[in-house]
Amino acid sequence: MKNTGSPTLEDVAEAAGVSTATISRALNDPDKVAKETRERIQKAVDRLGYTPNFGGRVLASNRTNTVGAIIPSMANAMFASGLQAFQEVLAESGVTLLVASSGYDTEHEFRQIRSLMTHGADGLLLIGDERPQKTKDFLALRKIPYVISWCYRNTPDGLYVGFDNEKAAYKLTNRVLEFGHRDIAMIAGISKGNDRARNRIEGVSRAVRENTDGARLTKIVEARYRLENGAEAFDEIMSASDLPTAIICGNDVLAAGAIVRARKKGARVPDDVSITGFDDIGLASVVEPGLTTVRVPQIEMGQEAARQLLRLLSNQPATSSIEIETELVMRDSLAAPKALAV
Amino acid sequence: MKNTGSPTLEDVAEAAGVSTATISRALNDPDKVAKETRERIQKAVDRLGYTPNFGGRVLASNRTNTVGAIIPSMANAMFASGLQAFQEVLAESGVTLLVASSGYDTEHEFRQIRSLMTHGADGLLLIGDERPQKTKDFLALRKIPYVISWCYRNTPDGLYVGFDNEKAAYKLTNRVLEFGHRDIAMIAGISKGNDRARNRIEGVSRAVRENTDGARLTKIVEARYRLENGAEAFDEIMSASDLPTAIICGNDVLAAGAIVRARKKGARVPDDVSITGFDDIGLASVVEPGLTTVRVPQIEMGQEAARQLLRLLSNQPATSSIEIETELVMRDSLAAPKALAV
Repeated sequence: MKNTGSPTLEDVAEAAGVSTATISRALNDPDKVAKETRERIQKAVDRLGYTPNFGGRVLASNRTNTVGAIIPSMANAMFASGLQAFQEVLAESGVTLLVASSGYDTEHEFRQIRSLMTHGADGLLLIGDERPQKTKDFLALRKIPYVISWCYRNTPDGLYVGFDNEKAAYKLTNRVLEFGHRDIAMIAGISKGNDRARNRIEGVSRAVRENTDGARLTKIVEARYRLENGAEAFDEIMSASDLPTAIICGNDVLAAGAIVRARKKGARVPDDVSITGFDDIGLASVVEPGLTTVRVPQIEMGQEAARQLLRLLSNQPATSSIEIETELVMRDSLAAPKALAV
Repeated sequence: MKNTGSPTLEDVAEAAGVSTATISRALNDPDKVAKETRERIQKAVDRLGYTPNFGGRVLASNRTNTVGAIIPSMANAMFASGLQAFQEVLAESGVTLLVASSGYDTEHEFRQIRSLMTHGADGLLLIGDERPQKTKDFLALRKIPYVISWCYRNTPDGLYVGFDNEKAAYKLTNRVLEFGHRDIAMIAGISKGNDRARNRIEGVSRAVRENTDGARLTKIVEARYRLENGAEAFDEIMSASDLPTAIICGNDVLAAGAIVRARKKGARVPDDVSITGFDDIGLASVVEPGLTTVRVPQIEMGQEAARQLLRLLSNQPATSSIEIETELVMRDSLAAPKALAV
């Protein structure tokens, strides 16, 4: 072994007593190399601190066995378990996941996509489908295999593995209306650049609009995704002269923030005001009262997205988009409005 | 522009009407290129869907402006806001963060480290310091710049930006003892391969051991990191004949799971049993009663870790490790045991 610089493939070959071709095979197609030989190579690789050269691996297999995911934020449990499930299915196929975060900024997402491709990602997981035309052109021009998740469209453009945010919010709102609520407010996520937040607003609005018994939206407040943002939006809604009997929240974090603030202000949930969530993350069952919310099957969605992306990467016949169904989870934060309950 | 294959640097040069050297400079050292020229190049890059060749960029600058982080799990809020803060500071310097998850498995962490280096990470953020010798050798042999966070050691080996888990758990336990508790149980994280979980157990044990007034540990249950794991561990502890008056939990998720289960079983917290957490994530203020817990200053820690890693990457003089202080947050889940309270 030479004394200077990083160890080379030749150094590993010499240390392991095999040819460089065998090492290349062990790295790229391990099943074709005897277990004992692989172990000898692994020991040499470990001992020398050898890192397979990226360019070399691409030349040998035209694949890096790495997939990128760009999520809006790392500081948000609403992507966490789906992403973990996505990664676990990839790992079963020996594919590594690298995650970048866009900060809910479509310009930044574009830079992250380019960065992940530059670093050799074979394919991508993207969240939602609102992005500038230049990003879509880039994905198309470069023929990048990708799956869109956390939303669903019935269109041949793109492969979706997700749920219909508008429909889920529409169903939830109809349930709120069935309980007798007519004056409804919404604490939504920031809709700019975020089709999921926007579609949830649209679903709520459609259900209220279609109601023929006087239902109306007293107010829609858009809020960022932290607990305190939900609390502040609750204050804004409850300090207006036009008060709702139910507040539909765009996600569980906003709803939990609103409930905690309600408790501090002495407002009883659901007796004084009903509050609903969206996502069914851990918070939803921890907060008191438990959140009535929309369960997003994150694990199923993440697993299925991984399977579909692996199909794309192995050039199997394209499947069509998959709609994952959400379901209403009834806990205790939604009840009939007081006037009716008496 | 040629009609086949991916666009090349030459294609971009032709479209933008500049030399390939100018494009290389714009990609690697943009301040040296006039704004108007950069914009023209950017437009050509966007339009053609050009991705800078990874190998080429490395040759030109010997830096990829990418940093990797390997965290134990994506499905866990205890890393989320620190990681987000870490990324935001990197982004200010134009450095992209790629995140991989090890699944709390040190073998898997080793593979992820190699993978990130293979994909051209300039440096790494690692969580905790328990890893096999081969991983440490690999990091040393390859001279990989890295910062260790979420723990702190007073040692010249390695650059730490984190907090002392043992000390924080020791202080918390002494506070529990001050309230009069003598029969204490612990719901800990899985300690195998996880120095943070192990050190928290050690801190609790030391405080109990040093107490001269009969304090003892009735039971230590190790549990995975989901709410239901905390609930199950609560059941295990409270079905024993030897009951504690306080349960110290290794993190907030376990504590919240225990509190929710206590509520379902009709046990009052803190009247029947006190429960404490660790981390002070959002759950801690949402659960009822609010969790008395240890606040880990995740944002400060993530920001400082990023600053230190950027220093390493720019070959500035090495700084020494930084200890971030934790603090006790007193909410309502800890009170004197019933016998004393009467």
